[in-house]
Amino acid sequence: MSASVEQGYFTEENSADVVISRNAAAKDARLREVMEVIVRHLHAAVKEIEPTEEEWFKAIMFLTDTGHMCNEWRQEFILLSDTLGVSMLVDAINNRKPSGASESTVLGPFHVADAPELPLGADICLDQKGEPMLVRGRILSTDGNPIANARIDVWQANDEGFYDVQQKGIQPDFNLRGVFRTNEKGEYWFRGVKPKYYPIPDDGPVGKLLASLGRHPYRPAHLHYIIKAEGFEPLTTHIFDPDDPYIDSDAVFGVKASLMAKFDKITDPVRQNEAGFDSPFFEVAHDFVLAPRN
Amino acid sequence: MSASVEQGYFTEENSADVVISRNAAAKDARLREVMEVIVRHLHAAVKEIEPTEEEWFKAIMFLTDTGHMCNEWRQEFILLSDTLGVSMLVDAINNRKPSGASESTVLGPFHVADAPELPLGADICLDQKGEPMLVRGRILSTDGNPIANARIDVWQANDEGFYDVQQKGIQPDFNLRGVFRTNEKGEYWFRGVKPKYYPIPDDGPVGKLLASLGRHPYRPAHLHYIIKAEGFEPLTTHIFDPDDPYIDSDAVFGVKASLMAKFDKITDPVRQNEAGFDSPFFEVAHDFVLAPRN
Repeated sequence: MSASVEQGYFTEENSADVVISRNAAAKDARLREVMEVIVRHLHAAVKEIEPTEEEWFKAIMFLTDTGHMCNEWRQEFILLSDTLGVSMLVDAINNRKPSGASESTVLGPFHVADAPELPLGADICLDQKGEPMLVRGRILSTDGNPIANARIDVWQANDEGFYDVQQKGIQPDFNLRGVFRTNEKGEYWFRGVKPKYYPIPDDGPVGKLLASLGRHPYRPAHLHYIIKAEGFEPLTTHIFDPDDPYIDSDAVFGVKASLMAKFDKITDPVRQNEAGFDSPFFEVAHDFVLAPRN
Repeated sequence: MSASVEQGYFTEENSADVVISRNAAAKDARLREVMEVIVRHLHAAVKEIEPTEEEWFKAIMFLTDTGHMCNEWRQEFILLSDTLGVSMLVDAINNRKPSGASESTVLGPFHVADAPELPLGADICLDQKGEPMLVRGRILSTDGNPIANARIDVWQANDEGFYDVQQKGIQPDFNLRGVFRTNEKGEYWFRGVKPKYYPIPDDGPVGKLLASLGRHPYRPAHLHYIIKAEGFEPLTTHIFDPDDPYIDSDAVFGVKASLMAKFDKITDPVRQNEAGFDSPFFEVAHDFVLAPRN
């Protein structure tokens, strides 16, 4: 350590070391370690960027405006984390799966804890709007065995790209949400509507930043799942429509190749009838593989 | 570039590259470059820290609370920048001085643009509180020549550690502020009061973070200067009391070895009389050297 770090005096060269040495007395070792990494990368980034004082102040005001945009209903810092890929990175780090297990993706802000448990085959679309869809598949272990009585919590946006909680009074409560249990063969099926792409809220500082970066605010169409079963790691994920116009440019980086599901249009009247529809429908068949609990 | 970067799909390994490639269409090349550095360091920091989802959410809430603390009078993100050494680093980068020139330090939030211009020797202390002090010195060029008619804007906290703008109605307006001009020998002198250490505002998220890190919120006693002269780079700096209890642990890292000034206690009645005081006083003699304008 140089003489000026020992004295505690700051220079352009030793800046990160001086700040880190000042945190040496932190009682919480994890906080001290986290702050060391943050300070080291923050100072390295400032040294690479060499911001003018005006640019530094713009950054201060961007963070301030982002904070001021946050309220009980809006979390602009989570949007910032999402659009910079940080939320997906934290998800990836916390959900490393063994080979063969289905991959996770971000939870998103629209999950509701107390959605109703419904019988297999129920229609979660309560307002008959949109193109009908049948979703079915199996929940399996990594050795290929079906998992009976797995709990499947599903939710989706409607065909205009809105969740029920975003349109209270317009959509029925608990529209396009439901909890299902797999049968003894590990099978699940339910009815809903073909989802549509939608924008993340883009009327705040994060939306302005995306626009400045030449980026759109859209997420490609998807269905959300949280799957839980006794003895297995819970899985929070989506399945995506590979034909969506935004499938290669999800604003929050949630898409993974393994999460693509095929949305097949079924026009055969016999199959329509079997599936309980009186018109053509989309069929989505997707299995999930759960990792054993560690 | 790997196949999954081309597709735009995110993995733990390629996360920063995927996000950066998404910003490729930014029209503002500087913004694109700045965001590349930020994304690269942000992702590297997350990978080193491996935050749990709870820790990530704590960080989101810390930033949110910091934003909510900001208002017209309080800038908590600047305090965060100050206490992490970022403000001083930005100052250092923007004020690299040639050998022999006086060093800069942070402006701080208490400068007032329209302080009165006063004759040399004037007392900037308008309420007779505190221990009297005479400050004097010269403004010089790097080749040692005196600079006449240099403009010296000085301001300081009172003997309780408060600036006038923090105690409106308690201290007189423009207390402990003044603008002076050097004489033809490059000399300046004025009277004030011995400054005292003071805490940065510590009742918000940044104060809580400092406490968790085992750090105090104090700045050692100092006098602020902005010195300007025709043909020279402006200099924004402080001088510090080396005997201050916090001289080695300034909460905002503003202290530099070259900015130490000696506060000499003068008890000789003849010198008291010469200096215009009727009691012992502190004398501070400090010269500043300005860099030629580039």
